[in-house]
Amino acid sequence: MNVTLTTSDLAHDKTPAASHPERTVDGLTRLHDAFEADLSRVNELIIERMDSPVAMIPQLARYVVAAGGKRLRPLLTLACADLAGYTGDRHYGLAACVEFIHTATLLHDDVVDDSSERRGKASANAVFGNQASVLVGDFLFTRAFELMVADGSLDVLSVLSKASATIAEGEVMQLATTNNIDTTEQQYLDVISGKTAVLFAAACEVGGLVAALPGDQAEKLRDFGHNLGMAFQLIDDVLDYGADRQDWGKEIGDDFREGKMTLPVVLAIDAAKANRDQQQVDFWQRTVGDLDQQDGDLDQAMAYLSQHGCLQRTRERAQQFATHAIAAIQAVKGEGQTHDLLIAAVSASIDRRY
Amino acid sequence: MNVTLTTSDLAHDKTPAASHPERTVDGLTRLHDAFEADLSRVNELIIERMDSPVAMIPQLARYVVAAGGKRLRPLLTLACADLAGYTGDRHYGLAACVEFIHTATLLHDDVVDDSSERRGKASANAVFGNQASVLVGDFLFTRAFELMVADGSLDVLSVLSKASATIAEGEVMQLATTNNIDTTEQQYLDVISGKTAVLFAAACEVGGLVAALPGDQAEKLRDFGHNLGMAFQLIDDVLDYGADRQDWGKEIGDDFREGKMTLPVVLAIDAAKANRDQQQVDFWQRTVGDLDQQDGDLDQAMAYLSQHGCLQRTRERAQQFATHAIAAIQAVKGEGQTHDLLIAAVSASIDRRY
Repeated sequence: MNVTLTTSDLAHDKTPAASHPERTVDGLTRLHDAFEADLSRVNELIIERMDSPVAMIPQLARYVVAAGGKRLRPLLTLACADLAGYTGDRHYGLAACVEFIHTATLLHDDVVDDSSERRGKASANAVFGNQASVLVGDFLFTRAFELMVADGSLDVLSVLSKASATIAEGEVMQLATTNNIDTTEQQYLDVISGKTAVLFAAACEVGGLVAALPGDQAEKLRDFGHNLGMAFQLIDDVLDYGADRQDWGKEIGDDFREGKMTLPVVLAIDAAKANRDQQQVDFWQRTVGDLDQQDGDLDQAMAYLSQHGCLQRTRERAQQFATHAIAAIQAVKGEGQTHDLLIAAVSASIDRRY
Repeated sequence: MNVTLTTSDLAHDKTPAASHPERTVDGLTRLHDAFEADLSRVNELIIERMDSPVAMIPQLARYVVAAGGKRLRPLLTLACADLAGYTGDRHYGLAACVEFIHTATLLHDDVVDDSSERRGKASANAVFGNQASVLVGDFLFTRAFELMVADGSLDVLSVLSKASATIAEGEVMQLATTNNIDTTEQQYLDVISGKTAVLFAAACEVGGLVAALPGDQAEKLRDFGHNLGMAFQLIDDVLDYGADRQDWGKEIGDDFREGKMTLPVVLAIDAAKANRDQQQVDFWQRTVGDLDQQDGDLDQAMAYLSQHGCLQRTRERAQQFATHAIAAIQAVKGEGQTHDLLIAAVSASIDRRY
């Protein structure tokens, strides 16, 4: 039953870019390429630390960790450490740690959402069951914790333990807003600040901390990560209603089917209420609030989103966060091309279509 | 929606003892009474640290933390710190931390086992749903982690982070043995060493570490905790097949109905195989392996356990671990009556009927 892992299993998944040659040089790919050697070290650590004599653990962990995704969070740790002039090797363990926290969160998210797919393939809970996903998620989280303790810096431990608690709080907050059509824009931004942006922020800040960056400079890295994370999540929300299925790895409208309140829907409901359009409010209550959905409802939802320009307005909000992210990174003193790469990665996060 | 908590909500649940006056002076009660003031401090911290602006978190956390149980793990931290001569207040936070880890584990356990009851009342997942139980479990675990980081000792962090990872590994191991009638005694002991005994061991060891006890002495405390935890779990296994329903707070035979391989069943299957009694082996395969159970199967299982003396033999194994626990604690230098109290608590753990 044991699974042999190799670093190639864990290589960054370039499929989407590779199938769209015109995008191979986008900012996220450039960032990845610039830190490919460092990311290999991180991948080696990930392989090593997700091992266990309990066969189900590496099997499931491999399934979800190897599935890849963009490895954006560990890349941010590596790039921010580099920007801060760091030349040691502590950032490898911390980047792995950040990825483990992220992966543990994904495993539990999929159980909570009862998801059957992630990144275009069957989700871990669909293959291994919810029970294993809950427990292996716990295992990966505890391994993240061990990696931090091994690093030995109480400052880093403080940042990552606070971030972990905030993520958990954000996830519970999201659960409370799901199916609640009275969720406000601010409540929604609080949710994604907790569940998404805080790990981006911590990933960047610990990159600065290992380099012993002064407090105000490390804070700028955290601001950068927070704003990038907010922008990233909002674009995810847009893509859920508008992505090219082949690239996205998710069905269009997953959030809608799960009754998730994301910013496009919050804005559409706000507009309907402002217009005293009870028919539209009733539509959202039935489909998202009560999850009573019929054929054609997704098309109708898309029509309402379009009527009120909600996807475009969500993109504009994302752009505002991106602008803040770029301002923050420009305020960090640093060397070489990493500044440019991080700025290009922000732009690519906004422009991406998958 | 917010719930106001008071320390009295979190008071040790004395109901079982109170309803059986002859047991009010058992060793566990004496240990509790001796550290009641300290435990109140721990309870205050628990209340403070399980709070959150996200209303569902304190609601659910209160439901499960306030449900009480024996508070044995934090009591062990308090008592071991006292035994080691500690006079500061770091042990309060660490005792709360140990209880949070335990509670997070319970929440996830109940989801994994699809349990509807715990300690005689509806389980949190039955009341709040599996989704909330998974996420609030994560939250409590991250709060435990924050408490450890606030303590600031890398030695303590190392012990508790390793313990947490081992618990998660033990839980996955248990999932792999559930419904597997070929589980060996050693495999089962490995499971409970991971999922139960390691937290008892860590709870005791950190009590020694805050007192700056020399390494070999802290190790004795860990041995004490480990052996007590093993004994405690084995008695739990016996009680699941033999407790007085009113005291136990669980249905007799829960483990059987869930297809859990516990030591009594492992021993019964071993005996059946040794006797080449295919009928009995087939019975366990059908009921525990395939979970194909009918009326009367639990009675039949109890009859087989009785035929091979499996409950008694499990009690004997528990007694062996208890003997090791007592030897370990006797090897720790210490003052006052705490030695006696800890020894009495071991005996009470073996003799308890609930």
